[in-house]
Amino acid sequence: MAMKAQVLYDFTAEPGNNELTVQEGEILTVTNQIVGGGWVEARNSRGDTGLVPEDYIELNPGSANAAPTEHNDAYNRDHNNSSANTQGVNGNEASTATTWSNNCTADNWNYTEQETAGNNGSLYSFDDEWDDDSDDGKSTGGYGDPQTDDGGAMQRGGAHSTMKISLNKFPGFSKTPNPEVYLLTKHVAKGNERLPIYSGEVGPVWLYPQAQLDCMVADPKKGSKMYGLKSYIEYQITPNTTNRPVNHRYKHFDWLYERLVEKFGCALPIPCLPDKQVTGRFEEEFIKMRMERLQGWMSRMCRHPVISNSEVFQLFLNYKDEKDWKLGKRKTEKDEVVGVKIFYTIDPELPELDPAQVEQKCETYNQFTKSMDNSVKELLAVGHLHWKRCTGPLQKEYRQIGKAFQNLSSVFNTSAYPRESTLTEALTATGKTYEEIAEIVAGQPRKDLHFLMETNTEYKGLLGCFPDTMGVHRAAIDKVKEADHLVATNKISPQDKRTMEKNLSTMSYTLQAEMNHFHSNRIYDYNRLMQFYLEEQVKFYETIAEKLKNALSQYTTM
Amino acid sequence: MAMKAQVLYDFTAEPGNNELTVQEGEILTVTNQIVGGGWVEARNSRGDTGLVPEDYIELNPGSANAAPTEHNDAYNRDHNNSSANTQGVNGNEASTATTWSNNCTADNWNYTEQETAGNNGSLYSFDDEWDDDSDDGKSTGGYGDPQTDDGGAMQRGGAHSTMKISLNKFPGFSKTPNPEVYLLTKHVAKGNERLPIYSGEVGPVWLYPQAQLDCMVADPKKGSKMYGLKSYIEYQITPNTTNRPVNHRYKHFDWLYERLVEKFGCALPIPCLPDKQVTGRFEEEFIKMRMERLQGWMSRMCRHPVISNSEVFQLFLNYKDEKDWKLGKRKTEKDEVVGVKIFYTIDPELPELDPAQVEQKCETYNQFTKSMDNSVKELLAVGHLHWKRCTGPLQKEYRQIGKAFQNLSSVFNTSAYPRESTLTEALTATGKTYEEIAEIVAGQPRKDLHFLMETNTEYKGLLGCFPDTMGVHRAAIDKVKEADHLVATNKISPQDKRTMEKNLSTMSYTLQAEMNHFHSNRIYDYNRLMQFYLEEQVKFYETIAEKLKNALSQYTTM
Repeated sequence: MAMKAQVLYDFTAEPGNNELTVQEGEILTVTNQIVGGGWVEARNSRGDTGLVPEDYIELNPGSANAAPTEHNDAYNRDHNNSSANTQGVNGNEASTATTWSNNCTADNWNYTEQETAGNNGSLYSFDDEWDDDSDDGKSTGGYGDPQTDDGGAMQRGGAHSTMKISLNKFPGFSKTPNPEVYLLTKHVAKGNERLPIYSGEVGPVWLYPQAQLDCMVADPKKGSKMYGLKSYIEYQITPNTTNRPVNHRYKHFDWLYERLVEKFGCALPIPCLPDKQVTGRFEEEFIKMRMERLQGWMSRMCRHPVISNSEVFQLFLNYKDEKDWKLGKRKTEKDEVVGVKIFYTIDPELPELDPAQVEQKCETYNQFTKSMDNSVKELLAVGHLHWKRCTGPLQKEYRQIGKAFQNLSSVFNTSAYPRESTLTEALTATGKTYEEIAEIVAGQPRKDLHFLMETNTEYKGLLGCFPDTMGVHRAAIDKVKEADHLVATNKISPQDKRTMEKNLSTMSYTLQAEMNHFHSNRIYDYNRLMQFYLEEQVKFYETIAEKLKNALSQYTTM
Repeated sequence: MAMKAQVLYDFTAEPGNNELTVQEGEILTVTNQIVGGGWVEARNSRGDTGLVPEDYIELNPGSANAAPTEHNDAYNRDHNNSSANTQGVNGNEASTATTWSNNCTADNWNYTEQETAGNNGSLYSFDDEWDDDSDDGKSTGGYGDPQTDDGGAMQRGGAHSTMKISLNKFPGFSKTPNPEVYLLTKHVAKGNERLPIYSGEVGPVWLYPQAQLDCMVADPKKGSKMYGLKSYIEYQITPNTTNRPVNHRYKHFDWLYERLVEKFGCALPIPCLPDKQVTGRFEEEFIKMRMERLQGWMSRMCRHPVISNSEVFQLFLNYKDEKDWKLGKRKTEKDEVVGVKIFYTIDPELPELDPAQVEQKCETYNQFTKSMDNSVKELLAVGHLHWKRCTGPLQKEYRQIGKAFQNLSSVFNTSAYPRESTLTEALTATGKTYEEIAEIVAGQPRKDLHFLMETNTEYKGLLGCFPDTMGVHRAAIDKVKEADHLVATNKISPQDKRTMEKNLSTMSYTLQAEMNHFHSNRIYDYNRLMQFYLEEQVKFYETIAEKLKNALSQYTTM
């Protein structure tokens, strides 16, 4: 059975581009999801097939091939029916390791894949010869043993490519880590690992470092190995702390991402890396674009006080030599404080929260991230449309206007009338000006819309991680809600219940600190984005006005 | 058999507007030519029917119902085969009155009807109750007797509506007035009617008056008659010479137009009046538009030294009272110096031209007007497209952008994060600015493109008259070309041949003076037009830049 999709916005096909005109509300059959470049191939009810922007449609996951799965998660996101969840919560479930991914691609709000940041599962099924080369083969062993952690660690399956595919194909069947073990454990955070949360002006906040870490991703270089049989691109990353560059390939970034998801994914939304690409990997344009996106991802990670301070992140930025890197990798891959265990290390120096307060906060955040996801998606859709119009019909039209003026000038030139030249020269200049405007209009999206789209795509990716983070939180809330019942049936002691409430409070402070971190970054990012966009837009209109003024000045006032 | 048409430019239908997407070169079947507003209904080869801008297609007149006609003109415009024309030229033909119209609508370059200036024949078949009212009924008698003039006068048939329809339906069958009688007559222009042609800086020119006549068409008032049963609009026309206003209704303008065609049409292209309209005649918008176009037409007539100085035109502008007007009308309707006889009155004070020179000049002018017609048409087509884009998809898109920013702002407002307000207020302002831009974009064509379209439509109408004027000229050239043969066969005397050549020279000077008048006006008009257009365009871009700057200023620099 093919995937069905509903059209969210009207879309008019440009002739000759294999596109399909669709109207809001129409149901399509998706015939090819991996076209790339933000497009999917679909068939309408009349049997016409063509390309449609993936932002314009909403995939209906229910219509996909639903394969049976062993771990049908009791904590899936039917939040509103907590009693229905009760039966799934038992010791067996809790001790069974859950294979869970902070899945950037599976659409947790029921949307289509992310335009750019999403790791399209199918793409991963291609062999990526320069990322899969063998010198670091041992390190992939780190993913190889997913069934051992009893804390519900966020691990990926052994072959992460197939893992990703199966998750992408069957969104909704990803497993939420079980927070029960954590909730029932009494603990005191201490030592190096301790992550304090303070009461800041805006509410609970992480401990921010005095100096903000940042790094520069630059200087992509093609390297090769195995006597030139395999080649790859290596980027230079220079942290502002040491100013000493280290080299990393995309697969190292991916390794870092895996570690961060594993360690922090239950508490912090870890945005996906920019996606891999199957074709044209060495094209300059692609390398530049990937570098720009890796820079964006790294900067976001650097800005996070918990992530930037973590051992694995510091290793990535500061390893001294190949040996140091390999030792550090092995060490971090053995780190046991992963999954929900991360909450053991969090220490809110704040009064314990009532479970009702926790639930209300969670609901607020859930609502906000969902609304923002919608809004970001709307902006992306309209930006996509505008981009297309600027580089397509608008450019063509301004060229036509320019051509029409120049043709008129040519005709006037044939008049053999002696007083013609001022007008024909001015007309030709006007025509050329409109041709220039055509190119300015077509080039403008790269100048301003590009950054707007990139930033919003990044946010779309980030927002897509929240449902999973919230899912863990929600599972904990539900667990605590049934505590009275568990006490009554002697499944847990009243003391256990107290511990659970205290631990839930810690989880809530974590979420609050994280949301405050998100808000503060969001305000900074959108402020910067909008200013940049408007500055470029002003320049755009002013440039055109100036050019037209210049053309105007060539006419004589008669 | 239905009319076929070839598509000249790609056109993409807007969804929901009953439009038809067509591609350059495609052949359509026109299913309804009288849709109005610059559209025709057509069917493509796949059987889809929809509206297409008439400027985008070229009707194929050969495919229309070709009705048999009695007066199949020997002088039709197959210029290049002059020997083939010989057999049609005989005494009978010459003495047969030819019913000919300076047909503004029949497409002499094989184009579709004019977008706005053309008198769409089918529209005329509706009863126009307020223009056909009866008080001036007697004056229509002036068109009533078309079969009497042996000089090939440019008269219309008795019922001009059917006359126009039949001409429109069968373009190519209009009759060219026969210049033979004029060519063979010796004459000396003298008295009041004498129209001298001088040698000016640019070549042969009319005698221009010292002060340029102009007039103002203003103050449209609704009047009524027959105790309010019939109503009409009366315009006030004030010439700059007397500064004394006179009143005229549209039908009076039409009467003036008929007289000018009759008297000058063989020598001067008389542009059509703005078209009548069937519906919404009293709507303010329409009245304003018609007034604007009547003003344009009158100004053009005022600028013409021959027309502005003519008795009929002076009567129209300067009649003293109702009685004066009626007497003057009757007098001008009896004027016998009409049709090719107008050339009797023309007196070029210049050396006689050789027939070869005449032919070469004629060819040059023919080429120029044809090319300019093409170019004007191209400009109208692209202007039409641009207008549609500005008021359609572009407006919609800027509104969407505005809405997307405002929605994002609303979502941000729900964050409950304390440091939000500066950003959300600025974002809302940005959104509103883009909504304003949407309206500016949609309103802009009325500000600048309107004048560009109007002027070019006027020129398209004017250029559409040239083939007929040239046709008379061409017929005279052909006549003179066969003079040797006629002399050899004793049909005319050598003296007749000399007279013919002298008269042809006069006709050529007339055409040259007229072309120089056209060129001088054209340069003036397009200079003014382009300056106006560019000034408005500059204002447009500057206004938007200013608005965006204002929005930008509301963000804080962090």
